[in-house]
Amino acid sequence: MNAETTAAINRSLRCKVVVIGAGFAGVEVVRAMRSSNADITLVDRNNHHLFQPFLFQVATSILEPAEIATPIRSLLHELPNVRVEMREAMRIDLSRRIVVMSEGDDLAYDFLVVATGAQTSYFGHELEWAEHALGLKSLGDAIAARNRLLKAFERAEMEPDPRKQARDMTVVVVGGGPTGVAITGTIREFTQRTLASDFRNIDLRKARIVLVQSGPRLLPAFSERHSAYAARALERQGVEVRLGVPVTHVDAAGVVVGGERIAAATVLWCTGVQGVPLARTLGAHVKPDGTVAVLKDFSVPGHPECFVVGDAAHVTGPDGLAMPGLASVAQDQGKYVGRLIAARLADTANPRPYVSFTPSKLATISRNAGVAEFRGRSIIGFPAWLLWGLLHLRTLSGGGHARLSILANWVRLLTTYRRSGRLIVEPSELGVGRGGHAPAGNEIPEDAIWRR
Amino acid sequence: MNAETTAAINRSLRCKVVVIGAGFAGVEVVRAMRSSNADITLVDRNNHHLFQPFLFQVATSILEPAEIATPIRSLLHELPNVRVEMREAMRIDLSRRIVVMSEGDDLAYDFLVVATGAQTSYFGHELEWAEHALGLKSLGDAIAARNRLLKAFERAEMEPDPRKQARDMTVVVVGGGPTGVAITGTIREFTQRTLASDFRNIDLRKARIVLVQSGPRLLPAFSERHSAYAARALERQGVEVRLGVPVTHVDAAGVVVGGERIAAATVLWCTGVQGVPLARTLGAHVKPDGTVAVLKDFSVPGHPECFVVGDAAHVTGPDGLAMPGLASVAQDQGKYVGRLIAARLADTANPRPYVSFTPSKLATISRNAGVAEFRGRSIIGFPAWLLWGLLHLRTLSGGGHARLSILANWVRLLTTYRRSGRLIVEPSELGVGRGGHAPAGNEIPEDAIWRR
Repeated sequence: MNAETTAAINRSLRCKVVVIGAGFAGVEVVRAMRSSNADITLVDRNNHHLFQPFLFQVATSILEPAEIATPIRSLLHELPNVRVEMREAMRIDLSRRIVVMSEGDDLAYDFLVVATGAQTSYFGHELEWAEHALGLKSLGDAIAARNRLLKAFERAEMEPDPRKQARDMTVVVVGGGPTGVAITGTIREFTQRTLASDFRNIDLRKARIVLVQSGPRLLPAFSERHSAYAARALERQGVEVRLGVPVTHVDAAGVVVGGERIAAATVLWCTGVQGVPLARTLGAHVKPDGTVAVLKDFSVPGHPECFVVGDAAHVTGPDGLAMPGLASVAQDQGKYVGRLIAARLADTANPRPYVSFTPSKLATISRNAGVAEFRGRSIIGFPAWLLWGLLHLRTLSGGGHARLSILANWVRLLTTYRRSGRLIVEPSELGVGRGGHAPAGNEIPEDAIWRR
Repeated sequence: MNAETTAAINRSLRCKVVVIGAGFAGVEVVRAMRSSNADITLVDRNNHHLFQPFLFQVATSILEPAEIATPIRSLLHELPNVRVEMREAMRIDLSRRIVVMSEGDDLAYDFLVVATGAQTSYFGHELEWAEHALGLKSLGDAIAARNRLLKAFERAEMEPDPRKQARDMTVVVVGGGPTGVAITGTIREFTQRTLASDFRNIDLRKARIVLVQSGPRLLPAFSERHSAYAARALERQGVEVRLGVPVTHVDAAGVVVGGERIAAATVLWCTGVQGVPLARTLGAHVKPDGTVAVLKDFSVPGHPECFVVGDAAHVTGPDGLAMPGLASVAQDQGKYVGRLIAARLADTANPRPYVSFTPSKLATISRNAGVAEFRGRSIIGFPAWLLWGLLHLRTLSGGGHARLSILANWVRLLTTYRRSGRLIVEPSELGVGRGGHAPAGNEIPEDAIWRR
């Protein structure tokens, strides 16, 4: 019996662990099992692990995609028991212990971890609103938002009709949480400082930036003092902050907010998340928002071999409220479940029951303003902004090169307001403009290889 | 009469110069007119000036788009007499002195410079081949090529059918000029050094990389010794070099080369350029390859107010052959025409007649191999590679930040073989996957603003 056969037999005897999603939670699950004997398959739709907290900086041309994303393979390449597969899971069959895939072989498992995160929710208006109000959950979203913003200003520069020009120069951000606040402040600086001197016909210092929050204050997860500071900081920059008004309509021309129509070419949707459709296939344990109600050890009731962690899970914290969708929370949960499975496989004692923690909260408002609740202390202004940057940089998994590169961009922004990536780039559509039209995603017809 | 009115009248009295294309030639035209009193409009389809010589490094994940492209507005923002418009010219009406635009107002001119460059030519097979064999002329092309290459390897990792797997692991580069040679060597290193250890099921060291050249030798513009060196260097790396065989067919399954079918998921088309369609609207003076036959001063015969420079122009060099499509050649021509127009406007003497020069030739083969003909000297190997890198870095217009960033990436590649940007990213298609479908390019319906 040769070595290859032995290896194959050994692998078939090993326990099969499938992890769906290579976000903060999924990656920690896999890392926590590095010394286990399991045969681990990590599945993701994308080929990269994304540092979502910096996504708004890609959308506003401060950072580039490669600085905030790492190929999953390269991130985990030193773990010999992990196989990475870039494809999409469609459905989980709990009774047969199988993940049904969109194409290719389905995946059988002994243990399953669902770490699929959350996606943008339009509160039931997906069909009408999603194409007009851009979400911000993936690199593709960030590039789309950047392209839309920059194209609108390019159109405005040439537009003779003042009404259309005003619409092209208006940006509406919906949602006053940390992402909405951060991207609003950043866009304001972008138009006022970086872009203004590049245009001849329009004055981007007069671009209209509106932040809409349906609740009574910004950053509702923070203290009232922090909320007031954020609103004041944005208003001092010239942002219109609308509090306590819901968005009732979105279309190609703009939004309707509290009965008033705001004409805007760029609408960014930073409010509302929901579990991804895959989690819903777990059946009875799914909450209306698509998250999954799990037991204390993150397993699905009745299925001790199936776990849900991170934003996909509905978990309450020490205060009885749902845990926030933070990287630190997802990583902590992922690490716990990874260790739990490793302990079961090794037949050692289960780790102690999971104790949730009160995570630090950090929000950035603009280039040198932020708020933080860090280790019980309340921090405001420049120190909070600095803390936000440094703590996040530390968590980044792209390695030293990405960190240095981001730091260099930030220093440049701080000192000169210059940003590198103000490019409108879309991958050439195959054949478009060259006469042909290709099937999406370079799908090769099944029979193509036999044709000749 | 207020200041604004005075300015408007002054502008209307000023001479209108329209430059189409913000490549190497177009940017130099505008820069050479910086002190003139002309009212200059620079039109480009993209919002960025692109450093095309590094495009193959974006396609192979060494560099990121923002490192090799600069927003045109920011590149020229200190020139007060230049307006930049991101839109597309459709047709030139020489008799009425008007550039007909795809949308919005047409542009009237007193002087016109056509600097539209070249586009990929499939020698009459655009309709059938373009969707399968990717060209490499724009950032969008480079991202599309990168996505296709990386997706093919991801598929191969999961493919049970060995025949399909082999096709996914095969790359064919068509064209043995500097771009074809450079991208072939780079892809070889990419698969062998950077990617190989990240995959579990496939061995990318065994990826099949084929370089096809219809002529008898690689780098035909260089000496025979250089050609032989390039072929040897690539073959030593494990590339299959096919000389003297034409590609007779391209489809989704691969290519047919000299009667033999090569099954390949990735086909890159680095051979053949032609003038862009706009240049053809100049009528009688257009060569079959779409370039424009111009007089010694780059004007179109019979139209001393219309110039064609760079790759769009058909110009013969001191040796009687057509000038090569190099950055240095385009810049030199652009500078000359900019000065010529400035002299006419100032009513000073015309500059001396243009004297074409023999440009240096540099080609890179892989991480530390290159060939160069530089100031009459022939250089080979590592020194030529170094010269290639340094001379090109010097020409780059992104400023110090981009240069440093590129250098850092190169040093990392040289020392570790690591590359940052191995990401498969496509801008989220608006509404796709979220239920809706948006019109292309975020076009806002004309009447959208009136709807409510």
